[in-house]
Amino acid sequence: MEKRIEVGVLGATGMVGQHFVKFLRNHPWFDLTWVGASERSTAKLYRDATNWRLDGVMPEKVAGLTVEECKPGNAPRLVFSAMDASVAGEIERAFAQAGHIVVSNSRNHRMDADVPLLVPEVNADHLKLIPLQQRQRGWKGQIVTNPNCSTVVLTMGLGPLKQFGITKVITTTMQAISGAGYPGAASMDINANVIPFIGGEEEKMQQETQKILGDFTGDAVAPLAAGVSAHCNRVPVLDGHTITVSVELASKPGEAAILEAFEKFSGLPQQRHLPSAPERPVQYMADRDRPQPRRDVERDHGMAVYIGRLRPCAVLDWKFVALGHNTVRGAAGAAVLNAELMYSEGLFD
Amino acid sequence: MEKRIEVGVLGATGMVGQHFVKFLRNHPWFDLTWVGASERSTAKLYRDATNWRLDGVMPEKVAGLTVEECKPGNAPRLVFSAMDASVAGEIERAFAQAGHIVVSNSRNHRMDADVPLLVPEVNADHLKLIPLQQRQRGWKGQIVTNPNCSTVVLTMGLGPLKQFGITKVITTTMQAISGAGYPGAASMDINANVIPFIGGEEEKMQQETQKILGDFTGDAVAPLAAGVSAHCNRVPVLDGHTITVSVELASKPGEAAILEAFEKFSGLPQQRHLPSAPERPVQYMADRDRPQPRRDVERDHGMAVYIGRLRPCAVLDWKFVALGHNTVRGAAGAAVLNAELMYSEGLFD
Amino acid sequence: MEKRIEVGVLGATGMVGQHFVKFLRNHPWFDLTWVGASERSTAKLYRDATNWRLDGVMPEKVAGLTVEECKPGNAPRLVFSAMDASVAGEIERAFAQAGHIVVSNSRNHRMDADVPLLVPEVNADHLKLIPLQQRQRGWKGQIVTNPNCSTVVLTMGLGPLKQFGITKVITTTMQAISGAGYPGAASMDINANVIPFIGGEEEKMQQETQKILGDFTGDAVAPLAAGVSAHCNRVPVLDGHTITVSVELASKPGEAAILEAFEKFSGLPQQRHLPSAPERPVQYMADRDRPQPRRDVERDHGMAVYIGRLRPCAVLDWKFVALGHNTVRGAAGAAVLNAELMYSEGLFD
Amino acid sequence: MEKRIEVGVLGATGMVGQHFVKFLRNHPWFDLTWVGASERSTAKLYRDATNWRLDGVMPEKVAGLTVEECKPGNAPRLVFSAMDASVAGEIERAFAQAGHIVVSNSRNHRMDADVPLLVPEVNADHLKLIPLQQRQRGWKGQIVTNPNCSTVVLTMGLGPLKQFGITKVITTTMQAISGAGYPGAASMDINANVIPFIGGEEEKMQQETQKILGDFTGDAVAPLAAGVSAHCNRVPVLDGHTITVSVELASKPGEAAILEAFEKFSGLPQQRHLPSAPERPVQYMADRDRPQPRRDVERDHGMAVYIGRLRPCAVLDWKFVALGHNTVRGAAGAAVLNAELMYSEGLFD
Repeated sequence: MEKRIEVGVLGATGMVGQHFVKFLRNHPWFDLTWVGASERSTAKLYRDATNWRLDGVMPEKVAGLTVEECKPGNAPRLVFSAMDASVAGEIERAFAQAGHIVVSNSRNHRMDADVPLLVPEVNADHLKLIPLQQRQRGWKGQIVTNPNCSTVVLTMGLGPLKQFGITKVITTTMQAISGAGYPGAASMDINANVIPFIGGEEEKMQQETQKILGDFTGDAVAPLAAGVSAHCNRVPVLDGHTITVSVELASKPGEAAILEAFEKFSGLPQQRHLPSAPERPVQYMADRDRPQPRRDVERDHGMAVYIGRLRPCAVLDWKFVALGHNTVRGAAGAAVLNAELMYSEGLFD
Repeated sequence: MEKRIEVGVLGATGMVGQHFVKFLRNHPWFDLTWVGASERSTAKLYRDATNWRLDGVMPEKVAGLTVEECKPGNAPRLVFSAMDASVAGEIERAFAQAGHIVVSNSRNHRMDADVPLLVPEVNADHLKLIPLQQRQRGWKGQIVTNPNCSTVVLTMGLGPLKQFGITKVITTTMQAISGAGYPGAASMDINANVIPFIGGEEEKMQQETQKILGDFTGDAVAPLAAGVSAHCNRVPVLDGHTITVSVELASKPGEAAILEAFEKFSGLPQQRHLPSAPERPVQYMADRDRPQPRRDVERDHGMAVYIGRLRPCAVLDWKFVALGHNTVRGAAGAAVLNAELMYSEGLFD
Repeated sequence: MEKRIEVGVLGATGMVGQHFVKFLRNHPWFDLTWVGASERSTAKLYRDATNWRLDGVMPEKVAGLTVEECKPGNAPRLVFSAMDASVAGEIERAFAQAGHIVVSNSRNHRMDADVPLLVPEVNADHLKLIPLQQRQRGWKGQIVTNPNCSTVVLTMGLGPLKQFGITKVITTTMQAISGAGYPGAASMDINANVIPFIGGEEEKMQQETQKILGDFTGDAVAPLAAGVSAHCNRVPVLDGHTITVSVELASKPGEAAILEAFEKFSGLPQQRHLPSAPERPVQYMADRDRPQPRRDVERDHGMAVYIGRLRPCAVLDWKFVALGHNTVRGAAGAAVLNAELMYSEGLFD
Repeated sequence: MEKRIEVGVLGATGMVGQHFVKFLRNHPWFDLTWVGASERSTAKLYRDATNWRLDGVMPEKVAGLTVEECKPGNAPRLVFSAMDASVAGEIERAFAQAGHIVVSNSRNHRMDADVPLLVPEVNADHLKLIPLQQRQRGWKGQIVTNPNCSTVVLTMGLGPLKQFGITKVITTTMQAISGAGYPGAASMDINANVIPFIGGEEEKMQQETQKILGDFTGDAVAPLAAGVSAHCNRVPVLDGHTITVSVELASKPGEAAILEAFEKFSGLPQQRHLPSAPERPVQYMADRDRPQPRRDVERDHGMAVYIGRLRPCAVLDWKFVALGHNTVRGAAGAAVLNAELMYSEGLFD
């Protein structure tokens, strides 16, 4: 790569923003040169405006950046959005209107019919919505989104099975506390406990999964016509969403065919050796008690999804366990991989 | 109750045995006067043979009992079995053969066709298997069992719905560490982690549920002809198994009918005011984030099951969360309630 | 007790306030009939103004009270203060000025020279400061305070040793998460972690201990002339502060004398059988690995302090472990016991 | 390094052994070519004999080694000892007798007068005991030991202060669960709890610290004549022992002098750039709530010790917090660094 690309992060001082700052450190293509945040933080140095909550230290180069207002203008063309949903919708549209490429982790535009909701290994072709989006909205810029953290784990687990005709999915999540921002769950609430409710999570997981696994039909995405039912729970785990999945498959594949589908699963990110792409995006673990979040979530830089315990389901056809890193593959890493795919598609030209 | 009943506990020094000792303290009907254990412990005082692991102190009266061999002879007629499955099968048969009423928490005989697998509010009529059992086996005594700890939570949650025709069930468990005996899960394994596997648990939960929800047909129990699929997980919670349940119901009841079924659910234990029976065995919690194990498991002395979050399931018909106390309603308390029911049925006469 | 006493709680909707509401339920002397809170909550019913965070349900009678402004006027004569330190100082003074008996858990007036900082078993005679307080400040009412939660555990552990001449104390705390209000520690911060800092805690623990163990000299309290050094830490425990203590004692007592001092320790609350007084306020546990917060903190309704592991210290004279319930003996229960002592002293006449 | 050195691990299949296997992976000097274990495992492949409990996968090269008996003979000259204390003493002597260099993590010979108890940055000169050891015992080989995991953290924290004359030390530990082998603490015991007792730990910490900080006098080590008093506790943390320290210093240095001593602390491992030596073995963290085990323990490959919160102590002179990685710097990493130092000293010639 001869020329590095300058990027900005909208909402850079919050928890998700910090994950972007951390993930982009030493990125081979992208240079984080611009950080935007709310009025309270603007004109301060990033190091002064930010209460750094992540392991490791704040990257020195970013620490010295001055925080800017979240308004188009002097921001780089490519901006990652880590803004809270209460403000992200409008600001992202303003940036896209002004010609920016907005790669967003926020939920606001995920379900818009003309906005790709992207898992690069699963539905890279949904990027074909972009010309429609630009035409319809009169934008030179564009908005591309990544799914909710639990949706990523489910769709990475189901992606390899799409070929068999997914008709029904029931999933139960056991989600880590790092998924909830800061302070997120109070320790009084989650210490040695399970909270069987996460606001809005089940709806997101159900709808987003249907969109991601849907087909691009030439001018729209037709959602997958499968029932998807989610039970979402918070458990006292630091990083990594573990989910159980029961799935009905139209073509009734056998165990060997499914295992092969998991193991051979690969997509454009792998073919093009995108910098953040894991070599094997879905990995099957043969040990009967794996994957486990604390033991497995840091492998492959948090960018792969681990599957285990494939076995017949007495109600649907098959059942298994899946695990993915909620703040990496489920947030900052997902968005950066999206941007890498978009660049490799020539969408930045 | 004019006359108290002497009882013994087989396997009294182990973790399950300790739960029996604790639960029987101050029981209004039963006097624990006999404790049996393996050879290593016999002839010692209970206090010396037992490494007490439970909260609170060892009941003084039991502490002074001398531990006996697990052989019929001088044991009381009614014995609770808390033995490890590796030895329980044979010893329980020997006691029943010798005329003892064996109320067992062990798994060995649960699935025997002529042994009741009892949840008193759900299938009290399965006690009608006893005459058949005695006839077939030539026993004066009898064996009655209670289910696995996770099965109890599921069947108490499904019992109220049996009237609607249960046809399919998918459940995911998040099980407490106290369910695994001592030392059970190593802290290195489960601290801040999820272990998505518990040996044999899913099979037990599936088969036992079908038997418990089955109908007594005059000379046998016909298992419920419903598909039951379980995903079992260990989570870092001290007491209380939390489960998610998706269920298909033949008669397609509405929300109000189901809520009423939960709230009105009651059985012989309640009608007869059995001492260990909770007033309302199944309780629906309206708060959207309840039940929670750490906050709710100790209510009603651990003998009720709590339900929450009833809502439509996009794949089956309805879904909800259920919680029950694994070492109380799921073990010692279950067996004691079984014995109370049996006594109230005149089975000790 | 022929006549019940009406009481109010200032700051009743917060976490500490909720602990007061819970602790006062079914109190044999005190009727909670008045709840005060900040402007945001006034004129609402308590049930609507309060996000109940504690185990068990909100007492029905209190749930129906209308929240009042924290201004003297229609409040009962006896008010417990559970207010945040940011507002407690001024409001407490206003109530005392207006003739109220203010029994406060807040830190604002604890170190005032004319305000008793009370641990009833340890320094009941410090109540003799009250006439001075009233005279100096021109109050008909009065303010009495209880110590910080970690101080209570330390002073209850040291109280029995005061007779031996305490000259040096070094203590390290391992404090529960429930001590920090709501939301308190973020689970992201404390899950599987230790935080070796609690703002202001060490200073409070050091100064308050010297005052509590000091002597009433006729018109003032002379602080104990002992060095007290505290290291305060937060650990992932729900309830119960565990502390290690090394202590130097002038009269060089032997082990037997110290054990006897712990076991025989008793005070006015025990002599007068005050309703919230534990029978034995300090209890020595002989097991070498006790006390433990999760296993022991709920004993004696949370009102006793447990000591263990007394052994020689290679630097000072003796060392031991102590445990107390931070939200009961360390907060609401401490204040209620103070009020009971004050009533029994005739201070409400 | 032109020539690689073959090494073996005694007790290679246990938890400590696994930490050695993991730590030695990709070591620039040492090739692990020999694994010894108890009879039960011999003649099996390491992969079959070992229940791998650590994060990450078993190194492929070691997985294929055949487990040998723990007898001198075909083992490499340099062996690391990870054996259980119940067998380590005798076997280590047999290896040293037979000419092996035994670098041991076991406790058996640590306090032997002629065995170096080594923390390379602190007391490298204690290696001068070796000729004495060989002469006295008639050995061609030798035994060198590293301290107990909690002792390492304390002595690394005190090492920089030795120049000021350490006269008294009181320390309280909050130790991680990974320090206790496998299964170590039962989750039922330590989940959301503190256990204020670790068998033998306080004695080891007190004696070993005096030996390590003692001076080599020409033919022996004179233990530091300072009182050292330890309170040892287990807390629910995965890796990393956090300790509080109060210390009396003869020369009464000021804060700046102590901070400088921490920051400038360095030893032979740093001067010689030993492969496992951290660049800065002791690092002071200025943030008021650091170090924290979960956030800081993995830095510097687990080989540095982190200090924080230096402040005056009201009883001794100064107090602070220290943190170190118990299974790395406190076990396998300590032994490997010892071996590197010994090699660099020419002790293998």
